[in-house]
This record gives sequence, C-alpha cells and structure tokens, in this order.
Amino acid sequence: MAPPFQRHVFVCTNRRPDGNPKGCCASKGAEEVRTAFREELDKRGMKGRMRANAAGCLDTCSFGVAVVVYPEGTWYGGVKVEDVKEIVEQHLIEGRPVERLLMPFSRKAQQPG
Amino acid sequence: MAPPFQRHVFVCTNRRPDGNPKGCCASKGAEEVRTAFREELDKRGMKGRMRANAAGCLDTCSFGVAVVVYPEGTWYGGVKVEDVKEIVEQHLIEGRPVERLLMPFSRKAQQPG
Repeated sequence: MAPPFQRHVFVCTNRRPDGNPKGCCASKGAEEVRTAFREELDKRGMKGRMRANAAGCLDTCSFGVAVVVYPEGTWYGGVKVEDVKEIVEQHLIEGRPVERLLMPFSRKAQQPG
Repeated sequence: MAPPFQRHVFVCTNRRPDGNPKGCCASKGAEEVRTAFREELDKRGMKGRMRANAAGCLDTCSFGVAVVVYPEGTWYGGVKVEDVKEIVEQHLIEGRPVERLLMPFSRKAQQPG
C-alpha cells in the first residue's frame, strides 16, 4: 500500500476550448509537465513515497501551468518542463521551495508579514 | 484569487477499460461523488475557501472511490454520493474526520501506536 505520500504533487491538466479567454493549463504543456514530474520521481526511486497526479482546474488559470504540492500547500505557476527537475530536487527531495516559481499568494504565505 | 484553500479535496475519477482486474473509481461513481462534493461546498458558501477537484489515479484502486483531503492528508475509501454530506459537514467544516470511511493506513496515521 503506497499512500500516504510524503509529498503529493497535483498538476492542473484542464483543457478549455480554443479561444476561451481564460486559457488553460493543457494548452501550455501541462501533460508534458506531469509526465516530467513522474519521470523525475521515478528516476530518484521515489515511487510509492511521492506521487505526481493530474488534476482538474485548480482555479488559478492565469498562472498556468499550475502545480500544487501537498501537504505543505505550496503553489507554483507558469511551470515548464525544464523547471521540473529543479522543483523535484530542491523542493520535493530537499524541502526548499523554488522561490522564483511560487504563485504570489504562496510567496506571501511563506513569508508572513 | 482563491487559493490557498483551507481544505482541498481530490477525488480519483480515473477510468480503466472494462474488465481491467484493478477496476477503477470512475466505474464506481467517482464523477458523481466529485459533483456531490462541489454542490455541498457551494451550498455552504465554501466556494473559494474549499475546493473539490477531480484527480487521476491515486494508486489506491482497491479502495475506490478514493478521496484524499489536504492539507491533513486524510484518505477516504469506498466513498459514495450519500457519504459526501457527512464528510463535508463533519470533516471539512467541523474538522473531525469520518472514521468509518477512512482507508486503513489513514486510520493508523490518525491513531499512532
């Protein structure tokens, strides 16, 4: 039995019709980002301890590709495939969030006051 | 800007082909469970404070419909539409997990020793 997971990553892979003013994470490469998380975690032997899941709309469309890491509730925005290795190594494994990719409200939550 | 959410619910809505020995949450009514969570949260004015998302396979197929609540990381199994009101009222709003629906490892995690 695998869960509970030490860290659980959810990547919004929601797709909206072309031309929707909100845009969507799927059109910005969300599936590729999710796959990259899975591959990086597998490579590091984290299978069963950490998991990267697809999720429906995370209600942060303007910041897509949107990613949230639980249990800490850290929100990343504009995530690209080339950012994934850094998030996995620095945050998921070493516990230090990647500041430059945090969504504004997640930045604030981590630096109160 | 809605997140971070006070509580964030993920419902596995993964669908496997008919006859797959693992079964899948979708065939057990996962979409209806997800919709029920959304409606119960809306009814209680929780929009923007709590969110129910669809998720890909949560790797707990034998316990489906699988639901995990973060940030606490509480795992529910065999969730049916008629259980949703109780989870929303007792756990999400009042903070007391619904013992009878916890997955075995989540039960243990909440009662150490």
